[in-house]
Amino acid sequence: MKLYNYFRSSASYRVRIALALKGLDYDYLPVHLVKGEQSAAAYASVSTSHLVPTLLDGDAAISQSMAIIEYLDETHPQPALLPADALGRARVRAIAQDIACEIHPLNNLRVLRYLTHDLKLSEDDKNRWYRHWVESGLEAVERQLAAQPGRFCHGDAPTLADCCLVPQIFNAQRFDCRTSHVPNVMRVFEACMALDAFSQTQPSACPDAA
Amino acid sequence: MKLYNYFRSSASYRVRIALALKGLDYDYLPVHLVKGEQSAAAYASVSTSHLVPTLLDGDAAISQSMAIIEYLDETHPQPALLPADALGRARVRAIAQDIACEIHPLNNLRVLRYLTHDLKLSEDDKNRWYRHWVESGLEAVERQLAAQPGRFCHGDAPTLADCCLVPQIFNAQRFDCRTSHVPNVMRVFEACMALDAFSQTQPSACPDAA
Repeated sequence: MKLYNYFRSSASYRVRIALALKGLDYDYLPVHLVKGEQSAAAYASVSTSHLVPTLLDGDAAISQSMAIIEYLDETHPQPALLPADALGRARVRAIAQDIACEIHPLNNLRVLRYLTHDLKLSEDDKNRWYRHWVESGLEAVERQLAAQPGRFCHGDAPTLADCCLVPQIFNAQRFDCRTSHVPNVMRVFEACMALDAFSQTQPSACPDAA
Repeated sequence: MKLYNYFRSSASYRVRIALALKGLDYDYLPVHLVKGEQSAAAYASVSTSHLVPTLLDGDAAISQSMAIIEYLDETHPQPALLPADALGRARVRAIAQDIACEIHPLNNLRVLRYLTHDLKLSEDDKNRWYRHWVESGLEAVERQLAAQPGRFCHGDAPTLADCCLVPQIFNAQRFDCRTSHVPNVMRVFEACMALDAFSQTQPSACPDAA
């Protein structure tokens, strides 16, 4: 398999974690977002969305990080990244989506650029926007985790939800967001970072890290 | 089952479509977003995220529209809302996420309020923001559909992807977004709207519609 991705893209990091948890080898193909390589012709022929990550499995190109992780879980079932029961699976997907649909889309690079370039917001306003959505969004995740605490987001093994949580905390820390109000989130973050699959795939460990 | 939802919430509409496609009965429990009922104590005891929709199945509360639809598909498999093959499932989830992670989060009510109330953007700038993300986001969906055209988003039966596409087009039309540049998207939208499951659950047909 081949993974088009970018060291600092949190959607890319989610997939790197999943591949590592499953012990799957892949070629790391960097796409430099700040240089705009995701919109260049070479990558547009691979990715209809012009977004990272894209997983190539043979001739098939798969986009969207959560869809990629579910695909990996279906094609390489062990270790499972979703629980066996329908309610558990729903809870894991909901936590992942609390992050991937409610927090991250508001704070990715192209949105921040639109705020400052097109809407002429100041750096201060942009940073206030960033922190608002991270800090309030993590509160919702905190309530989910507090309602049914486990070592990880769901029970005693990492799942799709943890693949989404850890990269979001990296983003939070990079932008100096408050995390003291989400103790369960941070406890799970620490449990994840004790595992090689999370620590060895982090942005600073990537081949394209500056 | 019971569905906490709001007529104009596109995430709610996604789940109404899925329930209708599967022929499942449910109690419709309105949560008035404009009045702030999603943050009131009565609903907070049901929903940790303070978002609609929430599906109650017996004692279990399930949040996040895509997680709810996958849960419905696992617990009531016919008619299937995801293809049988892993690559097809990945494609359907990716199209759904191209909408639910890339377009809709930027345009929901609380985000628009933050733009105007907190960042003091004008109505014109807010509308420009709205249209920018809808029109550019639909281009990515258009490229997905054009690459592998079918009667619906994926093949000849509606899936999770169609449950997400139709409500997004309702939002696009409500805010006068351009759709002439996405002919495959609009062709699929029309095919969906010819089905009762899509037309009879649309916002204007809901019990809480103004």
